[in-house]
Amino acid sequence: MRLKVKYIDMDTGELTALLHEEDCMDLGVREQDRVKLKHEKKDTITAIVQTTDSVIKPGEIGILGQTMKVLGAEAGEEIEILSTGKPESVDYIRKKMDGGELATEEIRTLVADIASRNLSNIEMAAYVTALHINGMNLRETADLTLAMVQTGDVIEFDRSPIFDFHSVGGVPGNKITLLVVPIVAAAGLLIPKTSSRAISSAAGTADIVEVFAPVEFDARQLKRIAEKVGGIMAWGGSVNLAPADDLIIKVEYPLGIDPHAQLLASVMSKKKAVGADYMVIDIPMGEGTKVKDMEEAKAYARDFIDLGERLGMKVECAITYGGQPVGRAIGPALEAKEAIGILEGSSFPGSVIEKACELAGMLLEMGGIIRGTERARDILASGKALEKFRQIVEAQGGNADIRSEDIPIGKHRFEVQARKSGYVASIQNKDIVKIARAAGSPKDKGAGILLNKKRGHKVDLGETLFTIYAENEAKMERAIGLARRLDSVSIEGMLIARVPSFSRVSG
Amino acid sequence: MRLKVKYIDMDTGELTALLHEEDCMDLGVREQDRVKLKHEKKDTITAIVQTTDSVIKPGEIGILGQTMKVLGAEAGEEIEILSTGKPESVDYIRKKMDGGELATEEIRTLVADIASRNLSNIEMAAYVTALHINGMNLRETADLTLAMVQTGDVIEFDRSPIFDFHSVGGVPGNKITLLVVPIVAAAGLLIPKTSSRAISSAAGTADIVEVFAPVEFDARQLKRIAEKVGGIMAWGGSVNLAPADDLIIKVEYPLGIDPHAQLLASVMSKKKAVGADYMVIDIPMGEGTKVKDMEEAKAYARDFIDLGERLGMKVECAITYGGQPVGRAIGPALEAKEAIGILEGSSFPGSVIEKACELAGMLLEMGGIIRGTERARDILASGKALEKFRQIVEAQGGNADIRSEDIPIGKHRFEVQARKSGYVASIQNKDIVKIARAAGSPKDKGAGILLNKKRGHKVDLGETLFTIYAENEAKMERAIGLARRLDSVSIEGMLIARVPSFSRVSG
Repeated sequence: MRLKVKYIDMDTGELTALLHEEDCMDLGVREQDRVKLKHEKKDTITAIVQTTDSVIKPGEIGILGQTMKVLGAEAGEEIEILSTGKPESVDYIRKKMDGGELATEEIRTLVADIASRNLSNIEMAAYVTALHINGMNLRETADLTLAMVQTGDVIEFDRSPIFDFHSVGGVPGNKITLLVVPIVAAAGLLIPKTSSRAISSAAGTADIVEVFAPVEFDARQLKRIAEKVGGIMAWGGSVNLAPADDLIIKVEYPLGIDPHAQLLASVMSKKKAVGADYMVIDIPMGEGTKVKDMEEAKAYARDFIDLGERLGMKVECAITYGGQPVGRAIGPALEAKEAIGILEGSSFPGSVIEKACELAGMLLEMGGIIRGTERARDILASGKALEKFRQIVEAQGGNADIRSEDIPIGKHRFEVQARKSGYVASIQNKDIVKIARAAGSPKDKGAGILLNKKRGHKVDLGETLFTIYAENEAKMERAIGLARRLDSVSIEGMLIARVPSFSRVSG
Repeated sequence: MRLKVKYIDMDTGELTALLHEEDCMDLGVREQDRVKLKHEKKDTITAIVQTTDSVIKPGEIGILGQTMKVLGAEAGEEIEILSTGKPESVDYIRKKMDGGELATEEIRTLVADIASRNLSNIEMAAYVTALHINGMNLRETADLTLAMVQTGDVIEFDRSPIFDFHSVGGVPGNKITLLVVPIVAAAGLLIPKTSSRAISSAAGTADIVEVFAPVEFDARQLKRIAEKVGGIMAWGGSVNLAPADDLIIKVEYPLGIDPHAQLLASVMSKKKAVGADYMVIDIPMGEGTKVKDMEEAKAYARDFIDLGERLGMKVECAITYGGQPVGRAIGPALEAKEAIGILEGSSFPGSVIEKACELAGMLLEMGGIIRGTERARDILASGKALEKFRQIVEAQGGNADIRSEDIPIGKHRFEVQARKSGYVASIQNKDIVKIARAAGSPKDKGAGILLNKKRGHKVDLGETLFTIYAENEAKMERAIGLARRLDSVSIEGMLIARVPSFSRVSG
């Protein structure tokens, strides 16, 4: 069937062809079926059918946003439309739904279809749901990881070995990359670290680094910078590493799921793509993180290590305390300020220094350096980490003379005070993130939270628990409102409950 | 946040709001999140976020097709946008993913959200996938059925009891409704039958009836007609019975799944909505139908009967032979012609008469009439069924004098001939449907197939196996091409294979 192209200025994220219901009947296709669009002089592409009885007339085909670009057609041209079958991947999704084990070749086809946006949202959702319920064994997970690597860019460094690390996430204030990368690089090891931006958190590492340096590099730039100064702190999204992952996350997010196998493959594929030989994985454990208890943490650790072995990577895992934010600062500029302060010699906050040196130390030991944590502390204390940090910042195109005191933070400030005296019993990670985000973080770099008290600290009525920073008054109002509603920092006396005597009598 | 409405002439089937990425950052929302759209003088609606950095500018909001209608806004107006959470239903979908049993109230909320299009395609796909994998027990299935009934129209007849029947589908040529309804109604029982149009088949019952009478009625019209003449053959899609079902089918279809519980609820909800007291369910079994073997057929039968009990309906099931098409005709006009021919007194094809009289007989017996099948045959033979059929056709607004010979069928004909002699070993339901659809069925009413030979028939080289009918030459060419490629009617000699003597020696 030949139809006249009408351009529709809209994008659904899928490759979409809008057909009139009458033409669908003639073609024998329904909504969500596939059609081939054949442009005589240009390409043939496959698109997913949407139907209408109003937006276009019979004889016309509506081509949406990027589908038009991919097809290379112009409005008013006639193109040939043919009905075509579903990709084989849909059968593999069915197989996973029915509890089957996917073969290497099946996983490769599935990931290739995901990466080339050949699957609809409905099919993608069925995939992640089936994976959430039926899981994958390690062999499938390794194949999934490799398939994700193969559908993106791969960086081959001239030097080896390559060191890398990753935090599984979920704990706010985790700015340790800003310390670990310069420490490890200062020890002479190559650490080309890519990080993500915040999705639902208050600040991703890429958001923090961007406060003082560019973070967007392609594969070639990344290689050049990392080889020159021994390390980089880049935004992973700018390098085309394992791009299928982002498309999968897009459907996981609305369902609030993160299937075990997909999480493993997501982390490992980005590391495999930069050729990591040795890597440390930080698994924060505690309320509000991705990992609830020791058992789950150990299961992840075991799987990361085994998966690493299958992929030819040596992996060590650190299960870390994630029950409250790491350090005091939450939000891009506040976290940058805190981390750079430590590089400059501040011995505060201790939790950040300790975590960074322990993780850096593990990497140093994997690189053959004995007493790694001690060595990491030395590198930090000697100023060598600061020097290396400045080299990296300069190589990324930032200001090498950056000082913590120069980093601008939100000019609107509000102190949230204790409504009773006692001890800080807990700090709710999720609530703190919500308040920081309401204040404008991560978009407003200067917005966020500075914790004045942490778990176990003594606090008096009226003392400041935390300070909210915002760049914009309306957002500050929203953040304050939220802080009042949420019990983000709970205070208890030493006496938690008093049991009256009659309960003993009646009991 | 206040944004200026821009109308986008496109419809995704979801309630969609297109936001610029910058505004999303400010609102703290991502693609697939929900926003409330508040129109000062009109309604507040909830829409699913799509993001763009091109179609609209920051400060604008793109409102798509029907979302605009629902909202009641006009292009250029400013509306208030607020970020809002996901519907609770997403938690219930998660619960089903995690293998949980859904409570009555949870199922009710879920179905209400489905019916009001409050769930995205991604969420809907996760629901049907979770249901396919983890299933529902009978209590949940009964709640699902009732919730589907409650979110649509319900018809209450002045008379009772109400009789009904349903064929689970998958077998082509199953035009028995055209016989069962008049036979049962002629016996004095009330049978307000609704049927579907073809989705992937060559002809739904509604497509067949539409050849000679209107089939689109609302609940009030349906009630009036059925009460007047004792029966109706309406298109279910025109009555708003259990509308959630159609929305669920829309996501099941692209995944090629039909979860057991959803199939049960789908059938029973439409029947419960018309207040059916007694019903017969025809479960065709065989290659190419929904039910593969006796075990599965019996499981369905048991569940239909148990579910009926929970819903206060008396259900009997007939497991029928579905290994080849029912009768000779496949396609709307051809099937209408065949069925009306039988009403007029033709004793051919026997399989259609037998199946219709058996099923009608079961209904008559449920209505207290003894020797039901015999009675059904009498009603058919006496001409009372034809008389009742004409009353029904007239009441639906069709020509009461309709005769089988007046029904126009496709003027292009092509006979597919046997390429060898032997016996018809099998007829592939799915291939026959494909060829009929290629010929134009069900859109072209006169298109379809007439089987000249059926299973077990002796056939000589060059004899006609089946005749293809089409209204359009190009479609006929496509159908012929397909018929040549597919081995839709397989012929075997009495000697199926010859085993040479040396195999005995070597064995």
